[in-house]
Amino acid sequence: MRMVIGNGLSFEKRSPRVTIWNEYIHERTDPQIAKVYPKGIHIALAEGLQPYGFLLRTATLEMLEHGLTKETLEQTDVLIWWGHLAHEQVSDEIVNRIQARVLQGMGLIVLHSGHRSRIFQRLMGTTCDLKWREDARRERLWVVDPAHPITAGIGQYIEVEPEEMYGEFFDIPAPERLVFISWFHGGEVFRSGCEYQRGLGKIFYFRPGHEAYPTYYNKDVLRVIANAVRYVGAPHGATPTYGEVKPLEV
Amino acid sequence: MRMVIGNGLSFEKRSPRVTIWNEYIHERTDPQIAKVYPKGIHIALAEGLQPYGFLLRTATLEMLEHGLTKETLEQTDVLIWWGHLAHEQVSDEIVNRIQARVLQGMGLIVLHSGHRSRIFQRLMGTTCDLKWREDARRERLWVVDPAHPITAGIGQYIEVEPEEMYGEFFDIPAPERLVFISWFHGGEVFRSGCEYQRGLGKIFYFRPGHEAYPTYYNKDVLRVIANAVRYVGAPHGATPTYGEVKPLEV
Amino acid sequence: MRMVIGNGLSFEKRSPRVTIWNEYIHERTDPQIAKVYPKGIHIALAEGLQPYGFLLRTATLEMLEHGLTKETLEQTDVLIWWGHLAHEQVSDEIVNRIQARVLQGMGLIVLHSGHRSRIFQRLMGTTCDLKWREDARRERLWVVDPAHPITAGIGQYIEVEPEEMYGEFFDIPAPERLVFISWFHGGEVFRSGCEYQRGLGKIFYFRPGHEAYPTYYNKDVLRVIANAVRYVGAPHGATPTYGEVKPLEV
Amino acid sequence: MRMVIGNGLSFEKRSPRVTIWNEYIHERTDPQIAKVYPKGIHIALAEGLQPYGFLLRTATLEMLEHGLTKETLEQTDVLIWWGHLAHEQVSDEIVNRIQARVLQGMGLIVLHSGHRSRIFQRLMGTTCDLKWREDARRERLWVVDPAHPITAGIGQYIEVEPEEMYGEFFDIPAPERLVFISWFHGGEVFRSGCEYQRGLGKIFYFRPGHEAYPTYYNKDVLRVIANAVRYVGAPHGATPTYGEVKPLEV
Repeated sequence: MRMVIGNGLSFEKRSPRVTIWNEYIHERTDPQIAKVYPKGIHIALAEGLQPYGFLLRTATLEMLEHGLTKETLEQTDVLIWWGHLAHEQVSDEIVNRIQARVLQGMGLIVLHSGHRSRIFQRLMGTTCDLKWREDARRERLWVVDPAHPITAGIGQYIEVEPEEMYGEFFDIPAPERLVFISWFHGGEVFRSGCEYQRGLGKIFYFRPGHEAYPTYYNKDVLRVIANAVRYVGAPHGATPTYGEVKPLEV
Repeated sequence: MRMVIGNGLSFEKRSPRVTIWNEYIHERTDPQIAKVYPKGIHIALAEGLQPYGFLLRTATLEMLEHGLTKETLEQTDVLIWWGHLAHEQVSDEIVNRIQARVLQGMGLIVLHSGHRSRIFQRLMGTTCDLKWREDARRERLWVVDPAHPITAGIGQYIEVEPEEMYGEFFDIPAPERLVFISWFHGGEVFRSGCEYQRGLGKIFYFRPGHEAYPTYYNKDVLRVIANAVRYVGAPHGATPTYGEVKPLEV
Repeated sequence: MRMVIGNGLSFEKRSPRVTIWNEYIHERTDPQIAKVYPKGIHIALAEGLQPYGFLLRTATLEMLEHGLTKETLEQTDVLIWWGHLAHEQVSDEIVNRIQARVLQGMGLIVLHSGHRSRIFQRLMGTTCDLKWREDARRERLWVVDPAHPITAGIGQYIEVEPEEMYGEFFDIPAPERLVFISWFHGGEVFRSGCEYQRGLGKIFYFRPGHEAYPTYYNKDVLRVIANAVRYVGAPHGATPTYGEVKPLEV
Repeated sequence: MRMVIGNGLSFEKRSPRVTIWNEYIHERTDPQIAKVYPKGIHIALAEGLQPYGFLLRTATLEMLEHGLTKETLEQTDVLIWWGHLAHEQVSDEIVNRIQARVLQGMGLIVLHSGHRSRIFQRLMGTTCDLKWREDARRERLWVVDPAHPITAGIGQYIEVEPEEMYGEFFDIPAPERLVFISWFHGGEVFRSGCEYQRGLGKIFYFRPGHEAYPTYYNKDVLRVIANAVRYVGAPHGATPTYGEVKPLEV
């Protein structure tokens, strides 16, 4: 859709092209998890995000080039990442390729256990380690940056139950914008919505989404992910140039 | 304009309502400056921003309540501020009122000598003092955050000539996002595009715009201001609540 | 103490001069609170900080100029602030004077209900409002920036019980460094250790310390305050100059 | 040196142990550069830093394990890094080892062309690319954070002449604290003093130091590096723990 404004000044506004990546192992190997996500987490996310009008596709680990060919990534405005068991099986080549695309401006949304993915570690420069406990209690995500567009349509907090616990210290660089902080029943807190920028690309880490619980059917969780797609997929400024240059002044 | 997306999920997208405030003294008292801005800086800005499709109005110091009545501010999504000689003549009541509206979510764009305005000092908590020299040389504003939407349509830098020099140290809190750094011929640099957030409101300080030079006819300068209007005027999350509360857990 | 290092390069290392300010009303008017702090919160803090070797003095609201004369502030490296009932009784002149000293480099530690003090609001530019509940349950402050010197000697978290609850949204600018996040039994979280810089001055907000509970006898709480004194009271760079300047290049 | 304070509370204060790493190629292969740094940049830096009382050692690329054995790094509080021609010759193992030590709390100072080193890219997650020109003109580094301890003893700016030009856009994450901005004669600016934290480790990037110019004999440049050693080598809080944990509340 091209919007024409006033006398000739216009900007193109189009639906973001979203690729949802899932390692897709739990759902095929564990009957309990298959019950929660029979078609896989990626399909559940795609179905949940469909009403928002994005151009959606999915990719999984076992596909050729993990489903992330050069062409696919070039046609991706936002990559959503879910992984857990097989971080080390993602090849160097694909990690390099994703990093390069983020630096060029592709948005990246890293979900839950994706905190230990190679691509997130690569972009953060840290281990991204944390505390955890699989106790199926309530998580309450408090909005601590209500002006952030990622919180549009959300009240003061989101509740997700049951969920896994993630606790501090979370070994990440200090978030450039911290959007959510989680409260857990067992006495822990967690920085659960974290924004970063690397090169021209925006990155959003969002905590909820243990594979054994139906978190990605939660309307508020989907709303945050949809808001994040719009936010990290928004257009931006000019591509930088590098290298040897002549002086501009004499 | 209401956009309907998919099966019923929608969000309203309307033109931001912009109020351009100018103290409007130089242009009426100094014939040299009147030649540059015969109708005042506020009208020059309004004319320059008109093609972008905003809902524009202007207000000046000598108007009743400086033209910033409660009603006007409530109907303002973005306030643009230019002042220089008469910062102290802006009343406590109006400064309080603007601050309250920013905290509720109104965007604020502070231009050039507005760095010493009472409202900017109030929101920053510092003197906002700096070095300066009125030498009519070139300013080159380098983009140091090319992913920032405020730089959309801008190349690697903007040149404005002639301009006044502003030099560091600029006594502001460290910008939450630093978008432009200016180079000056006399050997100085300046953080010339600075983003902040206070409450729900976004604030953007943009340096160029000495009253004696035709800066606000410069297409790139207008483009940055227009981008900033869209950026600081964008919708955001829920209004926070405060005060005594009951526990959510027992 | 002057330390001489190598061949003539030296730097002065002296104990920070600390002024502890308390409005000192609760302890004189409420017998329950007088039992907890018989000599006042300021004296309890002074006694608790004495082992750290600082040069300590106290000041209270009812003293002449609230005990914060020009001379006193000029001889203060770190000002600690506790207030609750009488924020509005602190005069404009003294608020201006403290702000000016912070901008010159005096450190400021704002405790608990001091979040609504005029000086903190002045330096933040926001309301500093929050949610609260006086329910005497446990607070657990998690370290989320273990590299911060303010956390030296502290483990992964501090527990304080009983304490008042403070909950998000806390209407402050995003902390420049977020050091602690509190967990509360009733389901809330709070950004409870927040660092800022204004001018040359460092500011640290630290949440615990309700007047009805013996928080300021807690060894970990005192340790954090002592660490903060060293941190915000540390020496820094050159005093900036402002105003009209000649070019450095021709 | 152990300082005992008051009644038994003490903290250890010792000289930071500094390892200066230099790839050491230019100085052995280019007679022009050998004239400037006859013993190598690492020895020039060691001699320049000696008066500050640090425990200094050096290491170079061609040494076994590049001179950075496990034992050496474990006994290093601050690693200073200079490299240019041979970034790719630094092995995976050593890059991993340095990163791990930084995350554990070792300080890292990256100088000049070290911006493209593997360890800096690893910790930043970006290309760290930039514009450049070897024109031997003046660089003026303006202090934009005069409260930062790294600027102690420095005035409003440092001048270095002759120097190479580095220009924006510099592809780094937004600095957590931006300390210096450089002005260049040819019309460029550059973020030339940048602080980051990764895990428990502090990182400082400092721009000056082209191999063909005698920059590391400049007293102000040495002073900044010495200040940075103290700053990134300072002690900090507790080592985090990770992994599965039991609840703290029931």
